[in-house]
Amino acid sequence: MNIFLGELLGTAALILFGNGVVAGALLKASKAENAGWMVITAGWAFAVFVGIVVAKACGSAAAYLNPAFAIGMAIRHGDWTGIPQAIAGELLGAMLGAALVFLHYLPHWRGTADPAIKRAAFCTAPALRDVKANLMSEIIGTFALTFAIGAMFSPAVAPHGMADGVAPYLVAVIVWAIGLSLGGTTGYAINPARDLGPRIAHALLPIPGKGDSDWRYAPVPVLGPVIGAALAGLALSRIGA
Amino acid sequence: MNIFLGELLGTAALILFGNGVVAGALLKASKAENAGWMVITAGWAFAVFVGIVVAKACGSAAAYLNPAFAIGMAIRHGDWTGIPQAIAGELLGAMLGAALVFLHYLPHWRGTADPAIKRAAFCTAPALRDVKANLMSEIIGTFALTFAIGAMFSPAVAPHGMADGVAPYLVAVIVWAIGLSLGGTTGYAINPARDLGPRIAHALLPIPGKGDSDWRYAPVPVLGPVIGAALAGLALSRIGA
Amino acid sequence: MNIFLGELLGTAALILFGNGVVAGALLKASKAENAGWMVITAGWAFAVFVGIVVAKACGSAAAYLNPAFAIGMAIRHGDWTGIPQAIAGELLGAMLGAALVFLHYLPHWRGTADPAIKRAAFCTAPALRDVKANLMSEIIGTFALTFAIGAMFSPAVAPHGMADGVAPYLVAVIVWAIGLSLGGTTGYAINPARDLGPRIAHALLPIPGKGDSDWRYAPVPVLGPVIGAALAGLALSRIGA
Amino acid sequence: MNIFLGELLGTAALILFGNGVVAGALLKASKAENAGWMVITAGWAFAVFVGIVVAKACGSAAAYLNPAFAIGMAIRHGDWTGIPQAIAGELLGAMLGAALVFLHYLPHWRGTADPAIKRAAFCTAPALRDVKANLMSEIIGTFALTFAIGAMFSPAVAPHGMADGVAPYLVAVIVWAIGLSLGGTTGYAINPARDLGPRIAHALLPIPGKGDSDWRYAPVPVLGPVIGAALAGLALSRIGA
Repeated sequence: MNIFLGELLGTAALILFGNGVVAGALLKASKAENAGWMVITAGWAFAVFVGIVVAKACGSAAAYLNPAFAIGMAIRHGDWTGIPQAIAGELLGAMLGAALVFLHYLPHWRGTADPAIKRAAFCTAPALRDVKANLMSEIIGTFALTFAIGAMFSPAVAPHGMADGVAPYLVAVIVWAIGLSLGGTTGYAINPARDLGPRIAHALLPIPGKGDSDWRYAPVPVLGPVIGAALAGLALSRIGA
Repeated sequence: MNIFLGELLGTAALILFGNGVVAGALLKASKAENAGWMVITAGWAFAVFVGIVVAKACGSAAAYLNPAFAIGMAIRHGDWTGIPQAIAGELLGAMLGAALVFLHYLPHWRGTADPAIKRAAFCTAPALRDVKANLMSEIIGTFALTFAIGAMFSPAVAPHGMADGVAPYLVAVIVWAIGLSLGGTTGYAINPARDLGPRIAHALLPIPGKGDSDWRYAPVPVLGPVIGAALAGLALSRIGA
Repeated sequence: MNIFLGELLGTAALILFGNGVVAGALLKASKAENAGWMVITAGWAFAVFVGIVVAKACGSAAAYLNPAFAIGMAIRHGDWTGIPQAIAGELLGAMLGAALVFLHYLPHWRGTADPAIKRAAFCTAPALRDVKANLMSEIIGTFALTFAIGAMFSPAVAPHGMADGVAPYLVAVIVWAIGLSLGGTTGYAINPARDLGPRIAHALLPIPGKGDSDWRYAPVPVLGPVIGAALAGLALSRIGA
Repeated sequence: MNIFLGELLGTAALILFGNGVVAGALLKASKAENAGWMVITAGWAFAVFVGIVVAKACGSAAAYLNPAFAIGMAIRHGDWTGIPQAIAGELLGAMLGAALVFLHYLPHWRGTADPAIKRAAFCTAPALRDVKANLMSEIIGTFALTFAIGAMFSPAVAPHGMADGVAPYLVAVIVWAIGLSLGGTTGYAINPARDLGPRIAHALLPIPGKGDSDWRYAPVPVLGPVIGAALAGLALSRIGA
């Protein structure tokens, strides 16, 4: 039960901060309106930092926050214990986090005219719609995420383990890197829960003047990350990291 | 007495740097004019870093800098020792810090026409005025702040304590996250002293062409943070973090 | 063989993230289009972070990622073991990384009209073309890079070695510094593999509407970095750092 | 002799990176032109990071890089050993660093029309010229710098000393804070060597189309920092930090 709750609350924190920074940068009259790519990518990076410490404190030592990453690690270690509970918690947590963003920015939805902008504060959409290319982007991005985190924790990098308390910040730096460098194409879902949970929340919540939830694109940010993380898990097990 | 002085000087530093970055980004002819949201949120984050080290060095080991956070921690641990002295120090320190910002930017007040801009260098104002929604934003923001910091220091994250000297930086990262992701609505007071102290200073100081101190909004950034932090203190005590 | 593979994969990661952030900031319709200098320099800094952890995890304890830096270290220590394998891996890895950036941003090349912009996502070009001055810039930048990293790892700075896991981040900060402060002239190649590998990839890849690969400038970002790093290696060996 | 050489080379690095980021953000045709306040303040912060590690590796364990800070520490500890050598090294190093920036950006001076812009890549100038207010700004800024660094190294913050290698980064964060929050008024000299050394270099170097070196303002960024740091040294000795 602990891993379920930890992943649920950690992912809720991840999405509160991650979708929060997108809402802040996009919604009309927000003090952060048009704050730009550095703000969005830093916000997502620090969202991961907060998500990790919340997940750990609430009972999930692994602090995956991401079904694809969890699957990648399961493949790498050949151990699926707790993975289904983690994934369930992450999806529910992501929905909860999206609902909190909806509440936090409550007066700002009505003033924002474009439904696509409002949806962007929930789930990702590609810069250029091209299913094959978008899928490849998500595979590359999530492979890079999973492989880099796995590499960072390998004994070759930190033989005695990381200095206490520093690891969540360094994971956040990796996510910042992904956003800065690889986020320009699909908005770096790199996490099925991060995209699907808020997309469901978008469909359910009474957002004024919302459009459709773009279900046609929904499979890409689920399948791409799972494929990318699974391949990275295989690669990590081969190099012994 | 030490906790009073430590909180007073630490909060003075917090506000000197925190309100300083707002003054720099808003006041006419400042070299940082229109520097944007990344600058403002980074400035507040590093203000917390400086505030913590000053508070600790001057005698407050807890380095709350924030009456709401102090109350949250008191609820969590069931121990109110030193809390009244801390809150008194924080309020006075915030006034002192605001006075220092007034002096530091002395020639810039006259050239800045809009009284609301000048007031923004002292206390917060919501992007969209809606008492219930603004209160909810401050509750969510301060709950997130308090819960995240509590989680970060829980044994599940740093079993042997943090690496020496790193903790104040990581607390600053959490405050950076709050600003980036949740600050767009009310300007993230998330601290009654940070808002009320400078508001009193705004009322008292001879600022050229200043307007009123917007006392109508003043209860929101006091009550919201206290409620949010109190709820987070309860939540932290329940998860044992 | 390990150092070859480690340098190959680490440099591929470096270029995926480093050239990736340039592509994201320059290519038409990217979500990061026109994101600016802070994004580009942060992206390159974190690219170094990821490159180092990947190189180490994949078998190269030194994690040079840079033939010039490798030569500088060889001069400093008077030990050329593994240097040729490292350089070969770095050049191939840089080509692989550039190919990954080409794939990641696949639908964005066609919409970007200017061939110089497309080439800029592969290799560097000077702001003002002046071979002597450009060479001097690359020498100064790479001297500063190599000397600063060498200084940081000297026993005078970290008598007991760095806190575990922190070193790659601090190397990234030095690269961030180089980019912010010295990158404005030539775009800070400071690494022959970073420039030559992607330049070769640019010549080979089927990029729609690409122009020439600017081979006339190609020697500058190879020779400048090698000279700068070699001088820094000599200087480091003289101060005993 | 070691402290002289360490301070000379460390301050040369500080100014190469610090003035370098200003040159990059201001000079015509630089790739970083108009990069803004975040870039400038981050560049100066990381310049301090590089300056510290270079100074330490080259023989100055204290790594002051700043005559005012050195005087403040001497007052605090009642020990002036090595201070004159340090100050001499800092002033010469700052001139050397400014000359390196001149060389690094060599082709960019001619294209930059405004002499005040060119001078800004050497020494500071106030946003609004008002000697008393400018002096007060420099006093406040340097007091804050010196007191914050002193507080950070006090046993109350890091009882067992900082985690190895982390301290230079955290000093850089304090300088980043000063720049973001207090730099808008006078451009935060907060260091007599940082201003006077490059001002002398500006007077001596053959910069095309340069104007005068604004000697009338020169005393402010020397006296203000010395007064501010001296007061902070006294304050630190009183709190025992």
